[in-house]
Amino acid sequence: MRLTLGRREFVALLPLLAAPLTLRAADPDMSAYATAAERIRRAATGSDASWQRLVQLTDRFPGRLSGSASLSGAIEWLLGELRRDGFDAVRAERVLVPHWRRGAEQAEVVTPHRHPLTMLGLGGSVGTGPDGVEAPLLVVDSFEALTKAGEAAAGQIVLFNVPFVDGPDLLASYRTVGRYRGGGASAAAKAGAVAALVRSAGPTTFRSAHTGGMRYEADVKQIPAAAVSGEDADLLQRLFARGEKPVVRLRMGAELLPDAESANVIAEITGRTSPGEIVLVGGHLDSWDVSPGASDDGGGVVATWEALRLLKTLGLTPRRTIRFVAFTNEENGLRGGTAYHDTYRDALARHVLAIESDTGVFSPSAFGFTGSPAARETVSRVVTMLEPLGVTSIGARAEAPDLGPLGRESVPVMSLTGDFRRYFEVHHTTADTPDKIRPEEIAAAAAAIATMAYVVADLPEPLAR
Amino acid sequence: MRLTLGRREFVALLPLLAAPLTLRAADPDMSAYATAAERIRRAATGSDASWQRLVQLTDRFPGRLSGSASLSGAIEWLLGELRRDGFDAVRAERVLVPHWRRGAEQAEVVTPHRHPLTMLGLGGSVGTGPDGVEAPLLVVDSFEALTKAGEAAAGQIVLFNVPFVDGPDLLASYRTVGRYRGGGASAAAKAGAVAALVRSAGPTTFRSAHTGGMRYEADVKQIPAAAVSGEDADLLQRLFARGEKPVVRLRMGAELLPDAESANVIAEITGRTSPGEIVLVGGHLDSWDVSPGASDDGGGVVATWEALRLLKTLGLTPRRTIRFVAFTNEENGLRGGTAYHDTYRDALARHVLAIESDTGVFSPSAFGFTGSPAARETVSRVVTMLEPLGVTSIGARAEAPDLGPLGRESVPVMSLTGDFRRYFEVHHTTADTPDKIRPEEIAAAAAAIATMAYVVADLPEPLAR
Repeated sequence: MRLTLGRREFVALLPLLAAPLTLRAADPDMSAYATAAERIRRAATGSDASWQRLVQLTDRFPGRLSGSASLSGAIEWLLGELRRDGFDAVRAERVLVPHWRRGAEQAEVVTPHRHPLTMLGLGGSVGTGPDGVEAPLLVVDSFEALTKAGEAAAGQIVLFNVPFVDGPDLLASYRTVGRYRGGGASAAAKAGAVAALVRSAGPTTFRSAHTGGMRYEADVKQIPAAAVSGEDADLLQRLFARGEKPVVRLRMGAELLPDAESANVIAEITGRTSPGEIVLVGGHLDSWDVSPGASDDGGGVVATWEALRLLKTLGLTPRRTIRFVAFTNEENGLRGGTAYHDTYRDALARHVLAIESDTGVFSPSAFGFTGSPAARETVSRVVTMLEPLGVTSIGARAEAPDLGPLGRESVPVMSLTGDFRRYFEVHHTTADTPDKIRPEEIAAAAAAIATMAYVVADLPEPLAR
Repeated sequence: MRLTLGRREFVALLPLLAAPLTLRAADPDMSAYATAAERIRRAATGSDASWQRLVQLTDRFPGRLSGSASLSGAIEWLLGELRRDGFDAVRAERVLVPHWRRGAEQAEVVTPHRHPLTMLGLGGSVGTGPDGVEAPLLVVDSFEALTKAGEAAAGQIVLFNVPFVDGPDLLASYRTVGRYRGGGASAAAKAGAVAALVRSAGPTTFRSAHTGGMRYEADVKQIPAAAVSGEDADLLQRLFARGEKPVVRLRMGAELLPDAESANVIAEITGRTSPGEIVLVGGHLDSWDVSPGASDDGGGVVATWEALRLLKTLGLTPRRTIRFVAFTNEENGLRGGTAYHDTYRDALARHVLAIESDTGVFSPSAFGFTGSPAARETVSRVVTMLEPLGVTSIGARAEAPDLGPLGRESVPVMSLTGDFRRYFEVHHTTADTPDKIRPEEIAAAAAAIATMAYVVADLPEPLAR
């Protein structure tokens, strides 16, 4: 069949024609990797080994918050397992981490009617002291509304009732509500408030509170801060809007202890010909204290670790070194990612690619990518081999918190992404348990990461910066 | 257009032909009620009045367990509102109810790894005493498996890990798991166990524990009983199956106090010509202590109350009396339903129909019905008028716990039913909040009940027994 195009149609097609031309000019031969990709896929998806490892991690070491015995135990266990797997250069690299402890906590509406509130203190918050804080509630829906309220916030507990928009761009929704979780307490304190509450940063499900990190601005009074469930935020909003002058009582035993010892855990497959060039894969081993941390980020740690194990089992040793890193302290400090950057500062130019999985392994469907257009074209070609796994596209940018310091120094950064709805439903809650993840999902994640890492680590040339 | 049928086709059509003939023979003229049905629908569905009343109830009186101040407050409030609405014969009828108090409670796995468990003690359970109970765990999936385990249960905490089958017949699933919630403790005690846990009777959502009633067999040792979330049951199952010999610690401050004063709340629209004949509509005002009780059964109380209000507002006074009853103590005793039966024993022959809404008002779609075939045909014809509300069928039987004693004495009994999945997701949990119910759903429920009650109360003849 032959098409005859008019001038307008031809111009419209130009970008489509241009793309393959560019690819052809820049790209190496990928066909050589089709067999390896297929072998990886078969080895991963025929087994529930990844899911079983995830369950080992979450069942033995739930609540892996920085400074906890659970995180220390997980680090020791992971080191042992990596050694047993026979990887190269297995090691722990010491990192000092913040040590925040939640203590007992509780909140309730005391007037006009008693309502226990489902809440979780925010990580980094100060406590209330044993007597707690009891004060009238002021509900606002933005920082601007708080400013407008002026004097009305003095002596009050301020609730930032900013809904997590349950729409197509959940990452954008999370960033929006995250501003209030992170900065709400200091904003409220500047307005004279005695404590700050935020609506949980996630879709409203079944009375789940979502914890998460917060920070105090320098030279601003530090007041306690906690998240309440979406249902409780709705209740408080109704009581407030009806003029019923709700009074809330908050008790939090939270405290910040001296920094604690922790570590990034590392294992490698040494490169065949260019061992000094690195493709990094990893996730973070720490989690929130109240959470088993299955999807945040047990799944990421296990999927990237299993990626290495698949390559080793299949005897696939690429030209460059593939380095697995289980970062510490992503949740409340990013000290692991920062320490990695500082330790390997002089080697960053030889970091060809860094991949993190930290947004869950729910129906993996894409890699987010931050890097040069030429590198994007190369990794896009690798993705064409991942279609049988359901991974079919490259997103506009990477979501990889531990790799931020590397990305800022021009290391190409990548993240595995999938169904964000399921991720945010359980994110930073007690419900982040392994039953939410299907064995075939984490297997597909491991296979996709293994293939991407292997091909990029084996291409004749490093990814273009 | 004319169809010519062969003999086979004609025989196949016979039942269709027979049905209208039967209806025609037995049924009165319904066309007279079409206008009333339409007026009721318009009045109900144009307003969020029902939902606003539901929110008044749940926001002011959450946790309306028998014996609680919240239930007493709700009774007083409802009496006042019914009087303000101007109904006839508004009254409270005294009922003595069990008074169980939960107290502080907590459970955790202590070895091989510490895991806090998400749990709720079962209503009626004894407490553990201040020192709690700590014992190895035995996991079984049925009463039969417990019997088979024999001596192995002695001194253990037994978990009945019987999953709520998340399939097409959720009521059947609920009945199955309900046997373990109700009778698990005595079965475990007879096997020598020191406490009983059950997997929550609902689909696994986000770490919700579902409480509910239990009972002890006479002359069997009373041991503490609690429900754990589905996720926790899965965890315990894994630890047990891997031979990790989990030890669980349970502390419950539960206690049974002397019976408390409570009441059924009643209001009526007096019948125009046969005031001694009754169509009853109602729900139960009590709820579990930990739950706002929006769908169980605030929605049922409000929908049936609003049904009366719609009729009054529209000036629709039927031949017979329509009586609204807000029963007390459905959850842990059924004393309200029993008391109603006993009080009106001599009038039951003149109870033409009794309708309860106690399975939520989520997408109302049907009336369950228990009664004679002839009565079923009559109410089926009323349902044809409810299609614009989404209520389109008559189910095989009524689900109406408070009306059990009436049904056993041949009163025709009916229940409003809808989306059971959404009901069981929040059933007996802290997440049974009004935001789960859409204003148009409770409005449709009120309109459907109002229409059914009005027509049956106004037909020339009572429903056939």
